[in-house]
Amino acid sequence: MQEPLVAVKRGPYTESVHHGHIAVTDASGRLLYSVGDPRRVTFTRSALKPVQALPLVQSGAAERYLMTDRELALCCGSHNGEDIHVHAVRGILHRLGLGEEKLQCGAHLPYDVQSSHDLLRSGGHACTVHNNCSGKHAGMLALAKFLQSDTGTYHLPDHPVQRMIAGALCEVTGLPEDQLITAVDGCGVPTYGMPLDRLALIYARLARPESMESSNRLQQSLSRIAGAMTSHPEMVAGRDVLCTDLMRVSGGEVVAKAGAEGVYGIGLVKEGLGIAVKIEDGQARAAYPAAVETLHQLGFLNEERRQKLIGYHQPAVTNRLNDIVGAIEPVFQLRNRKSAM
Amino acid sequence: MQEPLVAVKRGPYTESVHHGHIAVTDASGRLLYSVGDPRRVTFTRSALKPVQALPLVQSGAAERYLMTDRELALCCGSHNGEDIHVHAVRGILHRLGLGEEKLQCGAHLPYDVQSSHDLLRSGGHACTVHNNCSGKHAGMLALAKFLQSDTGTYHLPDHPVQRMIAGALCEVTGLPEDQLITAVDGCGVPTYGMPLDRLALIYARLARPESMESSNRLQQSLSRIAGAMTSHPEMVAGRDVLCTDLMRVSGGEVVAKAGAEGVYGIGLVKEGLGIAVKIEDGQARAAYPAAVETLHQLGFLNEERRQKLIGYHQPAVTNRLNDIVGAIEPVFQLRNRKSAM
Repeated sequence: MQEPLVAVKRGPYTESVHHGHIAVTDASGRLLYSVGDPRRVTFTRSALKPVQALPLVQSGAAERYLMTDRELALCCGSHNGEDIHVHAVRGILHRLGLGEEKLQCGAHLPYDVQSSHDLLRSGGHACTVHNNCSGKHAGMLALAKFLQSDTGTYHLPDHPVQRMIAGALCEVTGLPEDQLITAVDGCGVPTYGMPLDRLALIYARLARPESMESSNRLQQSLSRIAGAMTSHPEMVAGRDVLCTDLMRVSGGEVVAKAGAEGVYGIGLVKEGLGIAVKIEDGQARAAYPAAVETLHQLGFLNEERRQKLIGYHQPAVTNRLNDIVGAIEPVFQLRNRKSAM
Repeated sequence: MQEPLVAVKRGPYTESVHHGHIAVTDASGRLLYSVGDPRRVTFTRSALKPVQALPLVQSGAAERYLMTDRELALCCGSHNGEDIHVHAVRGILHRLGLGEEKLQCGAHLPYDVQSSHDLLRSGGHACTVHNNCSGKHAGMLALAKFLQSDTGTYHLPDHPVQRMIAGALCEVTGLPEDQLITAVDGCGVPTYGMPLDRLALIYARLARPESMESSNRLQQSLSRIAGAMTSHPEMVAGRDVLCTDLMRVSGGEVVAKAGAEGVYGIGLVKEGLGIAVKIEDGQARAAYPAAVETLHQLGFLNEERRQKLIGYHQPAVTNRLNDIVGAIEPVFQLRNRKSAM
């Protein structure tokens, strides 16, 4: 069952409560800590992007099209639509010889408020390149072109690109494909659902690929992806987003990625651990404090790091005058599951 | 305890679940139906605006400053920041001889996306008049001026304006002030918390003021406020907002107002009933389906009305290409509490 994870306080009073689930596993999939139901079936959404980029690297497509680690981080990211992101997406497409109209992700204004306002003020409008998933889609287009398959339908479940992604997902999670649930993601490609602890396992393996019993090629590809994300955190999200700031603060020791509907995945490189969070009601405002608190309880965050992330760990609730009128606070305690195994 | 109220489906699978509480009372405060904990202590937020406007009418200030029903509806509203709203706020301030800088609500861009984009495209920026609460604040300024009290501090708890509002709230709910909890609202004025069934009672009394044992003056003031809201629903919120569309569809039979953090209040005029909804996690996307479903289960919505509100009752989940990829669906059943009384 779900448990209370995060309280939203107004003054000293609890105004709202977010319930949810947390799983912490090692790279063999062993459950070490949990809150709520660590096997809660969860659509992984954008927390799956590092795996969705895996065939791009494993196939050799990334190498063929001279993709840099910075570009690869963007392919694994949910970017803010800042200039650096939009330019990088355009750079990949240019190298592929494909136009922006090939991106099947749909359009929305940049997540970054300043970039969005600048765009509107300059007479611009939402384009596919601004879509937070346009990096992922550019990577999928690169793979489609490399495979000499159709570049107009790469987002559909039966296309070779999506078949390769499903295969990679099964390999990393150890789940047969018929145990995954499938639906359509916000950007039009398939999204997969699985028990939450399998998402934790993905991140544990991303953090420690060498622990997998698999080909060197798969291990090297996971390693390149994790390294690209931790080396270029600004390309994974952007300013004022936890993924970017957490990876910056952690200096290569953490690989982290949010997903829609209150999902968060974290891999701890040194410890070889994976963390997965699902907020039952789907709100991001609770996923971030829950993710940071989990790191805190695992002893990963020293006080210096925690202070740098305090705005994500225990965000202030402000009114429209910017007065602090409340706070968002984690309220859970990880349960040690090691003795139960 | 909270109960599941609304499921967010992706394809046929439940991706997220919103829990919460519902109370339905008559105008004497008797609990008739409930889900979850009907006495869950709840900050009423903007669902309290009709009561916050009560001293404005009761004191004679609204009459003195020639406030129309249309303007009064705006004082009870959380408006979209459309041109009609901004012009009306400016009209009230002009008549009071006060500048926009007197509004203590803070600034934000119009809630209405088109209005917000138009403002940015024309080189404008967020002003206090765009704040969804600027109508309420203009009403408070009118009362402050009428009382010959300070117009610079009307938002503070000890100001005569806020003292009169607290008094009106106690009178309508029958609660002594020391049983209310108090904090600061998003627009800087005091907000009050109370058991959810008392919010339902407020709406039952707004729907049927004559049922109160109180002065004619209070009853007439509540009646004018409810009439203003139902006659000018476009001023209470704006385009594509449930409050406005529900009151439009219901032709004077419903008075309805949303509050932040998943709060919704509804009064049924013919039936003399009040409904209050609180989503435990605070999300509006669940409050609207829960509110409409409650009306449906109470037999208030015929199929024609329900179809007009289907986008609030069972909203589609779409991706960025506007394909339907899921749905938001109420999943609760009201429990009849009459036999338990």
